[in-house]
Amino acid sequence: MRVHGCRHEIAGLVTEVGKNVQRFNVGDKVGVGCMANTCQSCESCEEGLENFCSKIVFTYNCQDRDGTVTYGGYSDMVVVNQRFVIRFPDGMPLDKGAPLLCAGITVYTPMKYHGLNEPGKHIGVIGLGGLGHVAVKFAKAFGMRVTVVSTSPEKREEALEKLGADAFVVSSDASQMKAAKGTMHGIINTASASMSMYPYFALLKPQGKMILLGLPEKPLQISAFSLVAGGKTLAGSCMGSIKDTQEMMDFAAKHELTADIEVVGAEDVNDALERLDKGDVRYRFVIDVGNTLVAA
Amino acid sequence: MRVHGCRHEIAGLVTEVGKNVQRFNVGDKVGVGCMANTCQSCESCEEGLENFCSKIVFTYNCQDRDGTVTYGGYSDMVVVNQRFVIRFPDGMPLDKGAPLLCAGITVYTPMKYHGLNEPGKHIGVIGLGGLGHVAVKFAKAFGMRVTVVSTSPEKREEALEKLGADAFVVSSDASQMKAAKGTMHGIINTASASMSMYPYFALLKPQGKMILLGLPEKPLQISAFSLVAGGKTLAGSCMGSIKDTQEMMDFAAKHELTADIEVVGAEDVNDALERLDKGDVRYRFVIDVGNTLVAA
Repeated sequence: MRVHGCRHEIAGLVTEVGKNVQRFNVGDKVGVGCMANTCQSCESCEEGLENFCSKIVFTYNCQDRDGTVTYGGYSDMVVVNQRFVIRFPDGMPLDKGAPLLCAGITVYTPMKYHGLNEPGKHIGVIGLGGLGHVAVKFAKAFGMRVTVVSTSPEKREEALEKLGADAFVVSSDASQMKAAKGTMHGIINTASASMSMYPYFALLKPQGKMILLGLPEKPLQISAFSLVAGGKTLAGSCMGSIKDTQEMMDFAAKHELTADIEVVGAEDVNDALERLDKGDVRYRFVIDVGNTLVAA
Repeated sequence: MRVHGCRHEIAGLVTEVGKNVQRFNVGDKVGVGCMANTCQSCESCEEGLENFCSKIVFTYNCQDRDGTVTYGGYSDMVVVNQRFVIRFPDGMPLDKGAPLLCAGITVYTPMKYHGLNEPGKHIGVIGLGGLGHVAVKFAKAFGMRVTVVSTSPEKREEALEKLGADAFVVSSDASQMKAAKGTMHGIINTASASMSMYPYFALLKPQGKMILLGLPEKPLQISAFSLVAGGKTLAGSCMGSIKDTQEMMDFAAKHELTADIEVVGAEDVNDALERLDKGDVRYRFVIDVGNTLVAA
């Protein structure tokens, strides 16, 4: 497969298929997400939850089962077992679709699994970055009311005008936080900075659910009371299964939902990584490895 | 209603009904749990989730909406709106049934709400006290595999022989904990002591759920990784709705499930409270307020 995309959000065209491959043909538009392989025989794999396989081979910087090292999207070609290949639906562009293979499935899975995909429900999205901006788009596609909760007042216009969120709350503004108290069925928390959870739990309705996607370095400090009194949930979520990834891509195509990206050439990778460190990208870089995206 | 039971697990016979009461008649066997009243008009009340009403009137030591103070089961009589009265099904004894009105519903609700009530699933119960022993009984009635996790090796026989648990793990025994790693779909955590959560999260399968019922004083310390990597859930739970309480009592009666109790007379209350402080009861005291239980 010829690749575009980056580390573990890879999109491209099939260039060759093995003799036992039934599901794909040369020329198909396909993608590979975070997983390049798993044991395919444990309980998680049998249940179609490959993302929880203890022998998971990540698409980037991992030793595959044949001993080779995975290089993710930093490569002209990638060879992947068909089980881990996602079909790009008609109309889904390679470049803007690629980030859905990680960012998309990472927000889609907990929304589906925790019932935060129902029209009319109110969802909060903490943090407006690579994950957060896609979370807003999926929530709107599900027909939900969406409030972006951010530390950055300057993101208001982007959230409301460009991404279509219904409301914007600056987390350091006590009166705004108070007004939003007890209104949300769920929160997708994409922040990876250590933060006090208490003010955010207060935004949830009884039985509300906060989904944790980031990995703050320090342990979270949580008062049991803030969970027990309202019957609230704090749940982690990590990527998603292959089946759900295909479902998410099909859903996204149907709703013309893609990621906001900036395409860079392979020669610009170092600059892009420096800008990424500073948070200077809206919202994902996509590397045009073969300089072929225009033609695709 | 003439009462038995204790603080907020009250059982007795209806002695008088108001003119608008349709659901109960004099002589009915009934119970009252933690709630004596709520606003009956907020969103939670409208949805039948009275336990999350912000104006909840607890059955014990709370000011009711008419200004009177609630005394729970420490009283010969109690007057309660019919909405908050639970019918005792045929065959459910007043004394052994009373503790189900709090302990029972407190464990039943999260098991139902989080899908931890399915035959064949494996559930862990941390702590074998008033809540824990009832959790074991409900889990067995649901057809689940049950492992009691306890700090007290001397509770093994009680857990396995008397309560019917399938396995017993001493939490301080590293080899036992290791053997149980990744095997549980859920854990009912009844411990109210502060404890490190990490070893207990490790007992859960991917997507496993830990339900917190106790209220440790110190904040819980939780590494985000222990939730995110396995897509795990930490959820609080608090009592249950009136509808679920009735459902739980009917389920318990059908399965001949009751609490293990020690009945004491009203004159022995002070001794009982002292013994309770020392944890010297298996598993609930029931006060025979009117010394009428034998006749009931």
